[in-house]
Amino acid sequence: MNDPQNPALDGLQRSLAERVFNFSPGPAALPTEVLQQAAAEMLSWRGTGVSVMEMSHRSKEFESIHQQALADLRELLHVPKNFRILFLQGGAIGENGIVPLNLANRVDASRPKTDFVVTGTWSVKTEQEARRYGEVNIAASSKDHKWHKIPDASTWKLSDDAAYVHLCTNETIVGVEFQEIPDIGQTGTHDKGRIVVADASSHILSRPIDWSRVQVVYGGAQKNIGPAGVTIVIVREDLIGFAHPLCPSAFNWRLVDEHDSMYNTPPTYAIYVAGLVFQWLKAQGGVAAIEQRNIAKARALYDFLDQSDFYRNEIDPGSRSRMNVPFFLRDESRNEAFLTQARANGLVQLKGHKSVGGMRASIYNAMPLEGVTALIEFMREFERTAA
Amino acid sequence: MNDPQNPALDGLQRSLAERVFNFSPGPAALPTEVLQQAAAEMLSWRGTGVSVMEMSHRSKEFESIHQQALADLRELLHVPKNFRILFLQGGAIGENGIVPLNLANRVDASRPKTDFVVTGTWSVKTEQEARRYGEVNIAASSKDHKWHKIPDASTWKLSDDAAYVHLCTNETIVGVEFQEIPDIGQTGTHDKGRIVVADASSHILSRPIDWSRVQVVYGGAQKNIGPAGVTIVIVREDLIGFAHPLCPSAFNWRLVDEHDSMYNTPPTYAIYVAGLVFQWLKAQGGVAAIEQRNIAKARALYDFLDQSDFYRNEIDPGSRSRMNVPFFLRDESRNEAFLTQARANGLVQLKGHKSVGGMRASIYNAMPLEGVTALIEFMREFERTAA
Repeated sequence: MNDPQNPALDGLQRSLAERVFNFSPGPAALPTEVLQQAAAEMLSWRGTGVSVMEMSHRSKEFESIHQQALADLRELLHVPKNFRILFLQGGAIGENGIVPLNLANRVDASRPKTDFVVTGTWSVKTEQEARRYGEVNIAASSKDHKWHKIPDASTWKLSDDAAYVHLCTNETIVGVEFQEIPDIGQTGTHDKGRIVVADASSHILSRPIDWSRVQVVYGGAQKNIGPAGVTIVIVREDLIGFAHPLCPSAFNWRLVDEHDSMYNTPPTYAIYVAGLVFQWLKAQGGVAAIEQRNIAKARALYDFLDQSDFYRNEIDPGSRSRMNVPFFLRDESRNEAFLTQARANGLVQLKGHKSVGGMRASIYNAMPLEGVTALIEFMREFERTAA
Repeated sequence: MNDPQNPALDGLQRSLAERVFNFSPGPAALPTEVLQQAAAEMLSWRGTGVSVMEMSHRSKEFESIHQQALADLRELLHVPKNFRILFLQGGAIGENGIVPLNLANRVDASRPKTDFVVTGTWSVKTEQEARRYGEVNIAASSKDHKWHKIPDASTWKLSDDAAYVHLCTNETIVGVEFQEIPDIGQTGTHDKGRIVVADASSHILSRPIDWSRVQVVYGGAQKNIGPAGVTIVIVREDLIGFAHPLCPSAFNWRLVDEHDSMYNTPPTYAIYVAGLVFQWLKAQGGVAAIEQRNIAKARALYDFLDQSDFYRNEIDPGSRSRMNVPFFLRDESRNEAFLTQARANGLVQLKGHKSVGGMRASIYNAMPLEGVTALIEFMREFERTAA
């Protein structure tokens, strides 16, 4: 084991035993098997003698990695043939500007307009960014309900002339999730059809997507997909080609699509790790299987919270996120003790977002049921000893 | 060694022996020691039980990685206190749009204008992108000299009212490099001072930077810094704050700077690997030491080419790149045989860019002198057997 030529060996051997349950909201836990494979292949991918990090993006080796990742993602999400999958950079916050740069002019370039359903921190941030690029109509907002409940679609006041309707289908910070994307119909004063754009960053691949109800899905990778630095855009092909003249070429969907996400050097290593996650997900049984596991994990945690007088979750049961579970201790003076003891029990990154407070358990695809069970058992024990 | 709990061990042990000399133009070779450390820490960074990929960018662990990388880069390049270092996404091609979005309006927002010195494929691409954002003046071009010689600064026809002068200080594809950045003076019809913006993607950290002659340096990481997906921008602080209203927030230098490159989730793992490269570079003796090694590597290869009738490099000796050495075989029908035999000798990615043809050896910081020596010996042997 103590091969002086290869110090990596010792580290890996030790570190497997150190793994913890990581409830980080993002960048978030990845499957241990994926990290092991990435480590094993770090110095030489499949006998090539080079790391994936060192491969020209135009090499046949990287091209095979890239095409496999695209094919696996298409298969996992049942992406229809008339949708294109793009790998970009910039994250979801970058894409908040890139989406209107590519799409706000679709209906009326002289008067760009977008509709927003505002359900928490992320959709607020996105609509504020969209205001750079045109008029924003707030079709619905749950602000007056402290973001605790997603507004019923029957109450949305959609425009007839908006380029698109934006939804953030899982709000990582406040912990609400669309249980389905509503059918918003196709009417409008223009003949271009209504479309829905969904920021699905924090729940993509955790459940199926109904492609009859959403035409653009985007997300940063760092929750359910892979390392931060790659951004996925899945877009119906007829919606490509409306970019504003000031949109940088590297973010112009048409150019990116025409070059198969190789207009500029893509974030190759992040795409490789995302591809390993796709393979792992297929080995788990795909999205349908992981959804069942996610339902079981979320149910276990919410059921525990709901029966407790010591902890509470404030979100309307019909709007609760399966991915991000914020909760509070009845006695908030115990917060630091809770976090310290949780860490000592191998449960990390449970502190809530500063804008919400309390705790938050992010339980993405890579979190096993055992991690949620361990959290619940710790919480039970913490309550017992605190009493 | 055959621990079934840790399949990574076997792979690493084997793969060290498989390493080759990788002459890829980018993404490019990284130091083996850096890859070993990344592999060793993949499952648990410094006993935390989580991979760097899995860390919240707001965690104190990642913050320490980020701050160390910034401090090391500042030290390595002797970046003055009044320059800011930003980590963005999008690569140099993305930045080709982001730079004018942030800077073209500096002198006259009603009539944005930029000066370009065009010395090869990359500066052509950059000036074409800049045309989206205003008038472009080609101050000098070496197109008529087939890009073989950088135009002497005494011949540049600079505007008096340009927002900046753009240079690509190393042209990866054609293989020319500024041996120094000329002093362009500070005159103009406006009182804002002339400034130089340098795309240094493919030679940053290979030599010192004279900060009295350049005010913005940017580059994608994937040559001398680390994995593709992180973009470095080093900018004099008084040049921050001129962004066009349509610049996406995630690429607005002022916002990125105010949030210490954390306005959006940065490409955390790429920053970590870049940080390992910075540590490696310091251990090699820093930029001054690596520059001496780069000079020796380039001299060995160019000297060999110049004494040969079998191979040739066409670049003017005073403009030759230390990083990217294009060359041709006298008999181009032997190109495929050359590449096949090189690969069999553990020398990979030597094919020239399709726009130039022939061969290209990219010999960035991570390429040891032994790699260049091995290439020269192979070339000598190939010539001998071909004769």
